Amino acid sequence: MTETLIEKRSRLLGPNFSTFYKNPVHIVRGEGVWLWDSDGEKYLDCYNNVPHVGHCHSHVVEAITKQAKLLNTHTRYLHEGILNYVERLVSKHHEGIESAIMVCSGSEANDIALRMAEANTGRKGIIVTDSTYHGNTSAVSQLSYGRNAIGGTGDHIRFVRTPKTLINDKEKRASEKEYFAKNVTLAINSLEESGHGVAALLICPFFANEGFPTLEYGFLDEAVGQVRKAGGIVIADEVQPGFGRLGTNWWGYQKIGLAPEIVTMGKPMANGHPVASVVTSAEIIKSFRQSYGYFNTFGGNPVSCAAAEATLDVIEQDKLIDNALSVGTYSLNGLKALQNEFPQITQVRGSGLFFGAEMCGEDNLPLTEYAGKLAEKMREKRVLLSVLGPHRNTLKIRPPMVFSKDNADQLLDNLRSAMKEVECEL
Amino acid sequence: MTETLIEKRSRLLGPNFSTFYKNPVHIVRGEGVWLWDSDGEKYLDCYNNVPHVGHCHSHVVEAITKQAKLLNTHTRYLHEGILNYVERLVSKHHEGIESAIMVCSGSEANDIALRMAEANTGRKGIIVTDSTYHGNTSAVSQLSYGRNAIGGTGDHIRFVRTPKTLINDKEKRASEKEYFAKNVTLAINSLEESGHGVAALLICPFFANEGFPTLEYGFLDEAVGQVRKAGGIVIADEVQPGFGRLGTNWWGYQKIGLAPEIVTMGKPMANGHPVASVVTSAEIIKSFRQSYGYFNTFGGNPVSCAAAEATLDVIEQDKLIDNALSVGTYSLNGLKALQNEFPQITQVRGSGLFFGAEMCGEDNLPLTEYAGKLAEKMREKRVLLSVLGPHRNTLKIRPPMVFSKDNADQLLDNLRSAMKEVECEL
Repeated sequence: MTETLIEKRSRLLGPNFSTFYKNPVHIVRGEGVWLWDSDGEKYLDCYNNVPHVGHCHSHVVEAITKQAKLLNTHTRYLHEGILNYVERLVSKHHEGIESAIMVCSGSEANDIALRMAEANTGRKGIIVTDSTYHGNTSAVSQLSYGRNAIGGTGDHIRFVRTPKTLINDKEKRASEKEYFAKNVTLAINSLEESGHGVAALLICPFFANEGFPTLEYGFLDEAVGQVRKAGGIVIADEVQPGFGRLGTNWWGYQKIGLAPEIVTMGKPMANGHPVASVVTSAEIIKSFRQSYGYFNTFGGNPVSCAAAEATLDVIEQDKLIDNALSVGTYSLNGLKALQNEFPQITQVRGSGLFFGAEMCGEDNLPLTEYAGKLAEKMREKRVLLSVLGPHRNTLKIRPPMVFSKDNADQLLDNLRSAMKEVECEL
Repeated sequence: MTETLIEKRSRLLGPNFSTFYKNPVHIVRGEGVWLWDSDGEKYLDCYNNVPHVGHCHSHVVEAITKQAKLLNTHTRYLHEGILNYVERLVSKHHEGIESAIMVCSGSEANDIALRMAEANTGRKGIIVTDSTYHGNTSAVSQLSYGRNAIGGTGDHIRFVRTPKTLINDKEKRASEKEYFAKNVTLAINSLEESGHGVAALLICPFFANEGFPTLEYGFLDEAVGQVRKAGGIVIADEVQPGFGRLGTNWWGYQKIGLAPEIVTMGKPMANGHPVASVVTSAEIIKSFRQSYGYFNTFGGNPVSCAAAEATLDVIEQDKLIDNALSVGTYSLNGLKALQNEFPQITQVRGSGLFFGAEMCGEDNLPLTEYAGKLAEKMREKRVLLSVLGPHRNTLKIRPPMVFSKDNADQLLDNLRSAMKEVECEL
């Protein structure tokens, strides 16, 4: 059965469309933190952030059903759904974030954000880190360092080195902050010399794809100061840290002490329904529309907004941000206890329900292969997680926000067994 | 109530986000071809192609509900939903269309198609018409002529003149075909001289936004021959003509006698659920992924595929393509009868349930203002339609595919009254 599915997938979706795991999982059902495969086997989902309030949450499903039965149309007519939702959404952000464009994917949101920065500054230069991913449109995919764009990466993009993860010392962290700001300054100078000038620094404030290094509040202050001094603005990509995932705040930018001019949101926003958004000031949204006259047919339709609003309801009513903090802290402590048993765990870090452990061998060399084998072994034990970071040697644990301490225990127990079973050459 | 909504909309969605109509409609409910506003007034929807099989069709709503309750996840796991759907989708296309990438919007689909052409040809040059619209990403929005991109339109784009609409003579049509091919050849030469070379001709085979001129089968033969001779490929944008809208075929490219290498689809695909797709050969999909490693989080999720598959079910079970042909022909005949009463109707044209009437005054000068006033007057009469074409003097009538002869009579009766009521300066 599974083999036939893989062949069919290759024929219909393309011969080089990769799956998770060497032995891919054939998922047929989901509920809360649980997934079931076609053999009825049950998996603990420690990976998926898109079903933010839990797979198939009844409140979200009911909202979708109710609205899909009533009306689904575009935003050239008046409708209260989008207005009620955007009102609630912008109220979660800092002053100055007033208006939204609703779209279908984080990629669409970042694609707009880039043009908002251009329209607002009259310049094109974009600064990003060298290990990030902000999406898949032609314009946005170029921000992924080393992505083989035909004709090469645009000359208006500058990549700055990702902050190092393995720094435990506070003083060294301070120098890493300076180093990051210095690299941003070099990028600014280079953009100015090339004539592009600086439109924006686009950054995930949790540096999620970069391996989520532990960074102090204020880490970005100097870098952001330089960007603004050069007339640029800051775009926070909240597709991963947003909607309370970090446990301490609604948004990753609040945790790091940043007030971005533009914020983009996506994946978890409507629990899996294709919804994303870019929020900003009235002035920026106005200058963007003057230049580009943007309209998105599906964006902000009543069903999408109902799904997004129901997701907000559950986050608030079930206090899922508090849950992310308490269960996240509990899980981190559990990982730290494992660190005493397994020397290959070089660092445990994260915030709320986005955490992991970096695996290194001698001289802190990344154990990339080992981390990959661990993820495969966990799949065999029916616990789904992944790896990330520049060397893909950090476990990526990012479950639905309804993850409980019991779930954390199951994760930790299985991780202990898996680490015993997978040979590690230290 | 409406005024407050408009103010709130301006504050939350931006001060320059336009609505349809001077007196915007506040729609709260939909069913089949009907929409209701917040005062309970009922409107005949002659405009919306997105709710392809009718607003809130129960078969589609049930499919969404059933799958949303069961599982909604991404395509890195195995799932039969996307495979079953893509199997059915590609079977509707010509040989050589084998595989699909599922995405969330027609814009995402066209953005991919451009890069597929680049990856497959190793060249960047794109040819489009000068009155088209293919979507809203940074890359795709540049294909809208005159869209004020910061830094100007990319040097790799060439615009060719839209075929003229007001040609009733067969011989003149033949010369228009030659003229179009000649312009495409000039664009090819210009792209080759500039060093970009030709990647693709991207075209709506119904020339929908161009005012859907009446074109013979084979109209594109010579132009397409030149593109292929130059090593380029052809992308058909089926976002508007696709899924049987034209009544004669599943796709607009079949009606005009074209076998495109890449086809993009969007709006009507899942009756309003944010679903779109790009289909092509295994070879092209492979070369695209080798260059760009594309993944779309929401694209092809089980709920989206269930909505899309249910939409296909209804098209087939309710023989909606046949309905489009018979009701479309009936409506066209009705418009032709109106033409005898009203000299400002210079031409009646269209195919299936995409039709309209072009309004001109003396010397065939476009009656842009008059056509706009007619659309406003029809809104007052609770019949929703719009205008399009380079001069926006052609009525755009493009209702859900369940549009009946009774609906057509209601449209025509109201149009007759509206034309009597709106003063026309001939």
